[in-house]
Amino acid sequence: MKDCLENVRSQSPLVHNITNYVTVNDVANLLLACGASPIMADDLEEVEEITSICGGLTINIGTLNKNTMPSMFAAGRKANELGHKVVLDPVGAGASKLRTDTAVKLMKEIMPTAIRGNISEIKTLVFGSGSTKGVDADFADRVTEDSLDSAVSFVKGFAKEEECIVAVTGAIDLVTDGDKCYAIRNGRPEMGRITGTGCMLSGLMTAFLIANSDNQLEAAAAAVCAMGLAGEIGWRNMQPSDGNSTYRNRIIDAIYRMDGKTLERDAKYELR
Amino acid sequence: MKDCLENVRSQSPLVHNITNYVTVNDVANLLLACGASPIMADDLEEVEEITSICGGLTINIGTLNKNTMPSMFAAGRKANELGHKVVLDPVGAGASKLRTDTAVKLMKEIMPTAIRGNISEIKTLVFGSGSTKGVDADFADRVTEDSLDSAVSFVKGFAKEEECIVAVTGAIDLVTDGDKCYAIRNGRPEMGRITGTGCMLSGLMTAFLIANSDNQLEAAAAAVCAMGLAGEIGWRNMQPSDGNSTYRNRIIDAIYRMDGKTLERDAKYELR
Amino acid sequence: MKDCLENVRSQSPLVHNITNYVTVNDVANLLLACGASPIMADDLEEVEEITSICGGLTINIGTLNKNTMPSMFAAGRKANELGHKVVLDPVGAGASKLRTDTAVKLMKEIMPTAIRGNISEIKTLVFGSGSTKGVDADFADRVTEDSLDSAVSFVKGFAKEEECIVAVTGAIDLVTDGDKCYAIRNGRPEMGRITGTGCMLSGLMTAFLIANSDNQLEAAAAAVCAMGLAGEIGWRNMQPSDGNSTYRNRIIDAIYRMDGKTLERDAKYELR
Repeated sequence: MKDCLENVRSQSPLVHNITNYVTVNDVANLLLACGASPIMADDLEEVEEITSICGGLTINIGTLNKNTMPSMFAAGRKANELGHKVVLDPVGAGASKLRTDTAVKLMKEIMPTAIRGNISEIKTLVFGSGSTKGVDADFADRVTEDSLDSAVSFVKGFAKEEECIVAVTGAIDLVTDGDKCYAIRNGRPEMGRITGTGCMLSGLMTAFLIANSDNQLEAAAAAVCAMGLAGEIGWRNMQPSDGNSTYRNRIIDAIYRMDGKTLERDAKYELR
Repeated sequence: MKDCLENVRSQSPLVHNITNYVTVNDVANLLLACGASPIMADDLEEVEEITSICGGLTINIGTLNKNTMPSMFAAGRKANELGHKVVLDPVGAGASKLRTDTAVKLMKEIMPTAIRGNISEIKTLVFGSGSTKGVDADFADRVTEDSLDSAVSFVKGFAKEEECIVAVTGAIDLVTDGDKCYAIRNGRPEMGRITGTGCMLSGLMTAFLIANSDNQLEAAAAAVCAMGLAGEIGWRNMQPSDGNSTYRNRIIDAIYRMDGKTLERDAKYELR
Repeated sequence: MKDCLENVRSQSPLVHNITNYVTVNDVANLLLACGASPIMADDLEEVEEITSICGGLTINIGTLNKNTMPSMFAAGRKANELGHKVVLDPVGAGASKLRTDTAVKLMKEIMPTAIRGNISEIKTLVFGSGSTKGVDADFADRVTEDSLDSAVSFVKGFAKEEECIVAVTGAIDLVTDGDKCYAIRNGRPEMGRITGTGCMLSGLMTAFLIANSDNQLEAAAAAVCAMGLAGEIGWRNMQPSDGNSTYRNRIIDAIYRMDGKTLERDAKYELR
């Protein structure tokens, strides 16, 4: 875990993001906080060139639209061709046919290095339809201590089939390559009251994957632990009148100040 | 007032927003702060489906463009058909023909549950042209104690004609269904030095209208009081070096922490 | 310097921005912080009308796309026609052919009052191609004490050729009209760890240019000093757990609270 973060800080990877306009500013600041360098570009005419100068690409369908859909495919294919890392964030898959179909098509036509979503989005990718509660996970789907075993084997099966890393985030986070599975217990429930914690994590994961080529599963898990830990640290720094807007700032700030030793010490995970 | 906020917290309404990219992040965080769940979606191919799973729709023309204009009409019509709440925020109506015409057309072709704007935007809707100072109210139009009586009757007349709730916000806010009119004196002048207080309020109003179906006028007025009160609480929490960026965070934070009792106690309104 | 800021506060110039969706909220809040009034509009059908009611226009190509490119040219030409100020921010010129070509074309077809970028972006404009590291300056290009003399003459030459003000920002900032050159040493290196400090400065510069028609070079330099000074003040206000997200807020807050006397006293520049 320690090295995973320190490698990001020392290598300053360039991360190309095709993402939504709701949380794009937070994604950029979080990437800068971890030591990476973000670039946002989504016009078809430039995405291949931009992704070529970067080490990896985040594709986030949070505000999917017809203009940038072809850009996602073009950039994704170019990244594949160059052996760059690709993280797919299927925001709201299950909430509309457009999102479900596009997410499934992206997963099939591009080889993502990792897919990160909540459990309802991931189920939608597996079954081709779903019941996302807007952009949040459906309550019935949530991974709890009781459902943990079956969730682990479900997610492992999906990762094996897609031959990529799958990260399902929620109260307990699961990160697997189909073989090993990290079950991670960092984080705070209040993170769900901020827009963009998922989007920020997907960007962070791209940075971690780029800077840790020999250690992809641990890198993805380290990104999840770092984000959860930032949620814990940020929450400890909350003042009596602070709410979710300040909490967002404190989480990004916590990533900015986090060192490898702290991440190593406070990451809460087990391997299953 | 108390119940209006508590109903939002207990029902967590899903709110569909077609809004501008300037303040979209703040709108999402404010909706989360009040207990609602925001979803932003503006592609024509998905807006009807997205709006169907939500309880209401906010249409905000702050960065109007040709791609999302048809989405606004399609989503609005679908929301009407389903009996969902619709709040129209005619940002900058009067500043360009495109904005004026689109705002008027939206108002005519869609049955908004409520229209919320500054006095210049509302006058533009009434007269079909206007003199907005960019996205701010024209000084000459502002509602003051002196012009209050005539402003109340003007706004009442407009609400009666359009058969919807009209909320005009400024130093004194007016919220009317054409019959009763709340004159609200919460808020701080410094709120005008933050981008997005109006946009956030429109989103908040949609959430309040969804969660309080039996009590629409009071719900709209409660949203206005809550936003103004958050401005007061946020301002009290300001430190000597804080400015408008921190003030924005403190306002969202204040909504996050506000309970129904506080809103009931500190809402400053009279009925006219 | 003092008057330059005070003129913005007293005149509240309306600033039209066609800018990227990554940092647009911060640009709007920074403009409000300095006393200006921002309006964001990028649809071809309204940009000429919007720019006509404003005093100046910022064109920022940070998330360039085919929809808004024609709007940039149309608004720019209208602003020229009306004698309005235009600031061009060629974000990421050099990172893709689309950005390089568009930036060069904007510079040629529109008469910008000022061009503001990092050294790599400016070199790209001069040579028609470049090696921007994403949206950051290439390390090899950076202006240091050692390379200052040659950088000053390079930038002066470019400003003379383009007949406009050129502002190159970095560790040392240079602002020149081709004749005189301000070398400015305000700012903090940590400002590079926030997204949008450049975009915010470009917006600020437009406001300063509008409000100081008789004193264009000093106005541009004053905007650069103000932004750098805000970075210094914001940094002094940082608490032990604060990071880049809070730093962003503190910078905008510092502009909100800055008065002309402070700017005059703490601006660190020499004329070369």
